[in-house]
Amino acid sequence: MQTARTVAQARALFGASPRPLGFVPTMGALHAGHLELVRRARQTCAAVAVSIFVNPLQFGPNEDLAAYPRDESGDRRKLADAGVDTLFVPDAAEMYHPDFTSYVDIGPLGEILEGAVRPHHFRGVATVMAKLLNIVRPDALFLGQKDAQQAAILRKMIFDLNVPVELETVPTVRERDGLAMSSRNGYLDAQRRAQAPTLYRALLATRDALSGGASKPDAIAAGAAVLSPAARLDYLEVVDATTFAPLEPPRSPALIVGAARFGSTRLIDNVAWE
Amino acid sequence: MQTARTVAQARALFGASPRPLGFVPTMGALHAGHLELVRRARQTCAAVAVSIFVNPLQFGPNEDLAAYPRDESGDRRKLADAGVDTLFVPDAAEMYHPDFTSYVDIGPLGEILEGAVRPHHFRGVATVMAKLLNIVRPDALFLGQKDAQQAAILRKMIFDLNVPVELETVPTVRERDGLAMSSRNGYLDAQRRAQAPTLYRALLATRDALSGGASKPDAIAAGAAVLSPAARLDYLEVVDATTFAPLEPPRSPALIVGAARFGSTRLIDNVAWE
Repeated sequence: MQTARTVAQARALFGASPRPLGFVPTMGALHAGHLELVRRARQTCAAVAVSIFVNPLQFGPNEDLAAYPRDESGDRRKLADAGVDTLFVPDAAEMYHPDFTSYVDIGPLGEILEGAVRPHHFRGVATVMAKLLNIVRPDALFLGQKDAQQAAILRKMIFDLNVPVELETVPTVRERDGLAMSSRNGYLDAQRRAQAPTLYRALLATRDALSGGASKPDAIAAGAAVLSPAARLDYLEVVDATTFAPLEPPRSPALIVGAARFGSTRLIDNVAWE
Repeated sequence: MQTARTVAQARALFGASPRPLGFVPTMGALHAGHLELVRRARQTCAAVAVSIFVNPLQFGPNEDLAAYPRDESGDRRKLADAGVDTLFVPDAAEMYHPDFTSYVDIGPLGEILEGAVRPHHFRGVATVMAKLLNIVRPDALFLGQKDAQQAAILRKMIFDLNVPVELETVPTVRERDGLAMSSRNGYLDAQRRAQAPTLYRALLATRDALSGGASKPDAIAAGAAVLSPAARLDYLEVVDATTFAPLEPPRSPALIVGAARFGSTRLIDNVAWE
């Protein structure tokens, strides 16, 4: 596995890559969900590139940028074992010059749900992805369904700005008890870890109620009732899978999305209603 | 000369292009300034692509989008004669889907001088150029020095977002009387046409005064005194050539930039002070 730490090194490596080149962008602290993205990329691509970059632009001032888990040596082992060809690990100074002022803003889809709770988060996501795609120039981009709104936003950026890449969204990988794999799960103590799977169960209960003909308020109430009483629900919604517009009355196909705090750890998840 | 009218046609043509590929984006109504860009591109590139697209995103509601001169058949002849390999002529529906909501915003540099007079203009310029560069994927981009702030903004976008293209700025081509070549010169009646070169002479007078040691207010007053009294000055400034920040006290190297209205026709120009 070759490693690039600067944009110039990355351009040299990726410019000489076999094609098609698949790309899996990450913030490190890799888990089975990330490795599933790599596995999917290897199925269809002649080479696979992974980036590890904890992007300051997508963290709010009171969020967990400094605390975000970092484990480059562990990550490197996992990626090498998974057959990754090239790893791009820039530092923040390499990605953002002190005079940096440019942003990619994809509009209203970035301002609802996760975007309402985390102002400027998706502008930071879209901007760093525009940069990474310009540096890596992959043929295919692999993103996890767990971050569904992020994937929808990047799909919209790719469409609106004619970015020359195919986007594939890969199903969420879960623990045995249903908890979606996430680097932030590592923040949970044993008690919170035991409560965390209730977010997924809340989504399933909402879906079951909708499938049974319940109204949206009743279905969401049924879901919320399943969530651990120790958790704080940020939102639970039934949305269009492309625009993330809340659906009222609800109709399938749709996405049921939720976010909740378990102590100071904020987790998100979603399930399809088809 | 091959022609693409859709993004798909363009991708097919440009993907098979000899490299390096030079790109000259235009809004049509071509003049000797555009053809100089093509000539420069041919000097260093194996193939030259030109786009003609009157970009609605960069026109304000009270600007000249509908009236902007269009002459595709005349433009085609000029480009074929100039040795252009590929012409991309999309219509607005091909470039902007009805659900389009994404923008590239390069920050404060887009909000001063031309950006102050024309709100959202540079956001429209940066956005369409991000799209065109993603569609054409050129190795080199050729822009005219006449639109100096536009070139500075696109240089910043390319730097901040790691767009993989080299930008070359080509000196302004002028009429014999000094008037900078511009598609908008065609709006001028004989009387206004006779007044229009005073914008360039105002810039030169400002520069001469600065070189002679005048203060900035005195130099700008000397320039303004040379402008036709029938014209209305929008701005006359001494700015840093990269950031377009006004310089006080002025120091070379700098750019002296000006904009003035001759009747309803708004013209811009600039000269270097070195």
